Amino acid sequence: MRARSGRQRRALRPGTRRPGGRTARTRAAVRDAVLAGLTEHGYPGLTVEYVAEHSGVHKTTLYRRWKDVEGLVADALDLAGEDSWTPPDTGSLEGDLRALAHEVVASFTDPAVAASGSAMIAAGFQSERAAEALRAYYAERFTRCEALVERAAERGELAAPLDAGALVRSVSAPLFFRLFITREPVDLTLADQAVAATLAAARAGVFAGGDTVGATPDAGS
Amino acid sequence: MRARSGRQRRALRPGTRRPGGRTARTRAAVRDAVLAGLTEHGYPGLTVEYVAEHSGVHKTTLYRRWKDVEGLVADALDLAGEDSWTPPDTGSLEGDLRALAHEVVASFTDPAVAASGSAMIAAGFQSERAAEALRAYYAERFTRCEALVERAAERGELAAPLDAGALVRSVSAPLFFRLFITREPVDLTLADQAVAATLAAARAGVFAGGDTVGATPDAGS
Repeated sequence: MRARSGRQRRALRPGTRRPGGRTARTRAAVRDAVLAGLTEHGYPGLTVEYVAEHSGVHKTTLYRRWKDVEGLVADALDLAGEDSWTPPDTGSLEGDLRALAHEVVASFTDPAVAASGSAMIAAGFQSERAAEALRAYYAERFTRCEALVERAAERGELAAPLDAGALVRSVSAPLFFRLFITREPVDLTLADQAVAATLAAARAGVFAGGDTVGATPDAGS
Repeated sequence: MRARSGRQRRALRPGTRRPGGRTARTRAAVRDAVLAGLTEHGYPGLTVEYVAEHSGVHKTTLYRRWKDVEGLVADALDLAGEDSWTPPDTGSLEGDLRALAHEVVASFTDPAVAASGSAMIAAGFQSERAAEALRAYYAERFTRCEALVERAAERGELAAPLDAGALVRSVSAPLFFRLFITREPVDLTLADQAVAATLAAARAGVFAGGDTVGATPDAGS
């Protein structure tokens, strides 16, 4: 959810000229204004006028290209998902999962990052398009994370085939649950407990039987 | 989050006469109107006027007793926490946790219950008082759930002392994470996976060392 620099991974959308070009800069400025507005007023208080004023992009352009507030929020999330973030690669599954969990705690205990991330999650309750954009954002995020499960399987730390998606989500779930549902504090001790629980479950074969990592294709298929 | 009948567990608040009395009925009618309003319009669209119209309670009374929309939402959550719900008691830890996880899936795949529950969680993003009421609601809920961990420890299924709170939260976390953060579907298979992961973690000692269940007081203390 943090604004990141770096190359864009996904195909560019219509209207985007090239990474770093004028249109990409416009899109990033609009995204920054959307995040600022969500942080300041929340989804219900966000207006196209606010985004125009804070991005320096004319209201007419915003309406033509993003249509409405829902479109602006959804595109800000799409853009957040187009960064060059890759999951940690520390050499062990435990190290990778711990780095991942610590990153969640660091993000959501940094007030500046937490506010826009939290506002995006809140938007998902009020707009079906924002919910759809969140779904796509996290699906992409966790697909990238499956790489660390693949590496663990290659090192022989885990027996394949594995439901890698469930394994990596299992590390984040207890943290997000406390942050946004039970409204309890999170810290690195809790992050480490989430990692230990996930590793114990993985070793006990709880995430076995998925078909995303290490599955052998059927003969003839 | 579901409206439940039954005796009230906690001390009555000022203004409440007796369970089942006129004041209690007023409070329940107001709570029902708040849930209906949250479901229909979300927190940003909820007004004292709506609650007055749908509860049949005069606006003046609402302002005097609940002050504002935040007060109404917080009290609806307080009231939800005052039900007679007790955690499952199936005779085994696995059975109890599974019943618990299935209850979460059943609640949030029942559109009527899901809408008001989801609206309450959403209100936590927009109102600090709603967030505080959610925190109290879930703290009370999970405190009740610790009974099933205590019983498991008494049966020798788990070694005490245990962080019972973390153990029971671990079952719900992957479900709520998908429902409200990653916006993915949940089902009984996922519920059973959350139970299996929690049991594996508990057996591996991940939740050991808490001081809530089975801890022996220090000699002399």
